[in-house]
Amino acid sequence: MSTERFERGAARLAEMGGDIDNIVAPLAEVAPDLARFVGEFAFGDLYTRPGLDLRQRQLATIAALVTLGDTERQLRFHINAALTVGLTPAEIVETIIHLLAFAGNPRVFNAMLVAKSVFADRDLLPVVG
Amino acid sequence: MSTERFERGAARLAEMGGDIDNIVAPLAEVAPDLARFVGEFAFGDLYTRPGLDLRQRQLATIAALVTLGDTERQLRFHINAALTVGLTPAEIVETIIHLLAFAGNPRVFNAMLVAKSVFADRDLLPVVG
Amino acid sequence: MSTERFERGAARLAEMGGDIDNIVAPLAEVAPDLARFVGEFAFGDLYTRPGLDLRQRQLATIAALVTLGDTERQLRFHINAALTVGLTPAEIVETIIHLLAFAGNPRVFNAMLVAKSVFADRDLLPVVG
Amino acid sequence: MSTERFERGAARLAEMGGDIDNIVAPLAEVAPDLARFVGEFAFGDLYTRPGLDLRQRQLATIAALVTLGDTERQLRFHINAALTVGLTPAEIVETIIHLLAFAGNPRVFNAMLVAKSVFADRDLLPVVG
Amino acid sequence: MSTERFERGAARLAEMGGDIDNIVAPLAEVAPDLARFVGEFAFGDLYTRPGLDLRQRQLATIAALVTLGDTERQLRFHINAALTVGLTPAEIVETIIHLLAFAGNPRVFNAMLVAKSVFADRDLLPVVG
Amino acid sequence: MSTERFERGAARLAEMGGDIDNIVAPLAEVAPDLARFVGEFAFGDLYTRPGLDLRQRQLATIAALVTLGDTERQLRFHINAALTVGLTPAEIVETIIHLLAFAGNPRVFNAMLVAKSVFADRDLLPVVG
Repeated sequence: MSTERFERGAARLAEMGGDIDNIVAPLAEVAPDLARFVGEFAFGDLYTRPGLDLRQRQLATIAALVTLGDTERQLRFHINAALTVGLTPAEIVETIIHLLAFAGNPRVFNAMLVAKSVFADRDLLPVVG
Repeated sequence: MSTERFERGAARLAEMGGDIDNIVAPLAEVAPDLARFVGEFAFGDLYTRPGLDLRQRQLATIAALVTLGDTERQLRFHINAALTVGLTPAEIVETIIHLLAFAGNPRVFNAMLVAKSVFADRDLLPVVG
Repeated sequence: MSTERFERGAARLAEMGGDIDNIVAPLAEVAPDLARFVGEFAFGDLYTRPGLDLRQRQLATIAALVTLGDTERQLRFHINAALTVGLTPAEIVETIIHLLAFAGNPRVFNAMLVAKSVFADRDLLPVVG
Repeated sequence: MSTERFERGAARLAEMGGDIDNIVAPLAEVAPDLARFVGEFAFGDLYTRPGLDLRQRQLATIAALVTLGDTERQLRFHINAALTVGLTPAEIVETIIHLLAFAGNPRVFNAMLVAKSVFADRDLLPVVG
Repeated sequence: MSTERFERGAARLAEMGGDIDNIVAPLAEVAPDLARFVGEFAFGDLYTRPGLDLRQRQLATIAALVTLGDTERQLRFHINAALTVGLTPAEIVETIIHLLAFAGNPRVFNAMLVAKSVFADRDLLPVVG
Repeated sequence: MSTERFERGAARLAEMGGDIDNIVAPLAEVAPDLARFVGEFAFGDLYTRPGLDLRQRQLATIAALVTLGDTERQLRFHINAALTVGLTPAEIVETIIHLLAFAGNPRVFNAMLVAKSVFADRDLLPVVG
């Protein structure tokens, strides 16, 4: 099933601290093609494009996930990835606070508690601005 | 409190593998009229209309719930109902994958894990395309 | 860090049955400025304005939270606050039912179960219309 | 096609300054049943319930529509209805401003321009707080 | 720039009554890669999969677009495509009405007016159930 | 009515190529306090914080607005501001394309046409990657 685009996506995901098996395994019995599409398209096609570096991409991704809502699982992964590619905890916190103007308090408050939990797991608390 | 429309809705719900008591009972002390409206309007008026069969309705319902987000409870019920009215696990999986183009990955991924859990409860894994 | 606007917000929150420390404490290590902004702006600037009383504000707040989705934490707080400022359980239930026309069944059903849980905690069940 | 619930809804709508024909006519060739359902359910069942007066219902409705987005047509109607049932321009403005905390600036700003347009049509500008 | 996946997507789109040039041309000066991704992924990868026929896919697509909101442009295209692949006007109308239970009246009402406009352009009014 | 926070916000907005009068004037007769809050809080408090530079803030803002939907007016302003603070057309295009994975095609396609229109107004077409 593996394609060149999928391999490229898996490699990009690894640079972000992720493991393609964590997408492939839970979908194996229900929708292996979904895992393939995520690997090929999201990580293989989109995340490997030039034009924005990975820190910029994680900034945009976090902003989108906070705004969308019902994305705790995704925020947890992408905040971890943001740290791996070099965004600081303070930059992530600042991005979420910034969204008070656009997404409203509930989205921001919920996302900040996810960020806190990720930072705690990585022993990054307290965040120093 | 029971009306003809409500009885018709309860019967329709039963065809879908549901039990109107699972709507009535949890709302009994807080909002019995909400249970009545859901029975009368959603299941009695809308779900009993001609023009689309129940498999088409469950296709549309699942697509709406995936897109809306924060609907795990409803997806669990309506994926079960979809199976009961004759959609196959493969058709349900395919519907959710299709929404990658319209609702984005987070909605699709979360919904697929709900589908997997429903299929596991009914001993329907692995899904064969 | 405390400002006049923040103190005013904390006082308003107290009138609503809340405690600013429940916002400040969980954010202390991750984003103390977010707690300050919520205190200053949402509760200090907006919630203290004349023109609507607190019961009207809680009506509008609950309608917004139900519609937004993924707001269980906020609904729990604001339904409690609605009771504290004088809305009856029946008025809160009625507001949520009203939203069937605008936000769809899933949002309404999920919110009603949160309301039921809040009412149960305050020994307010059954709700009498 | 007219039912008792529909007639009751049409009467309620008239109290709100609306005209059921403005719903029936544009849908006549495409979906007359949709007009019937809106008349019967939204206006006949929901809007005629006791427990909240029409000013409270319009407060909740406006809050829901602002938060939902892509509702200019509905906001225009329901802000007009809010004025007809006795909410003042200042109360409507205050409700929209209140939502800065929950729905974010873009939703609030767009809705306020709709309110301004409705007030201008009714010669209610400037709004005095 | 053309790939096998893109060619397959363009062919699929043509079966749906669309023309890939209507995606390529407006994006040519701003984001040709976006046109390529839409052709390759949405139409080439997703829309050509077995497991659901095109009528089922258009049912799901319309349900998703109605629920998402702010999708008039997309609804116009996909309602046209739904007709081309064999859904009847009555089935499309019925799908939109069905969503009253899940997406709320404003989304349904706005979508129905788009459907009416598409049907009028194709001389398909009045719709006979 | 002018406060230190408002003046700071107006100055920040000017750095972004905006003019506070374009917010103040249209709201003057309907909701001058809304203009004050936007100036004080969004531009005065949030946009002047350290921790993220203006290019990072505009990246996050655009991602949030694309995802939220029904934000054409805001996208038009903030894409212009993004250019003013130094993001290139190619970076803006890339940010919008990136969101295919998170917000779905309709949000991305609509936003790209807004970007194209802004770039055309500033004679920045074609965009060179």
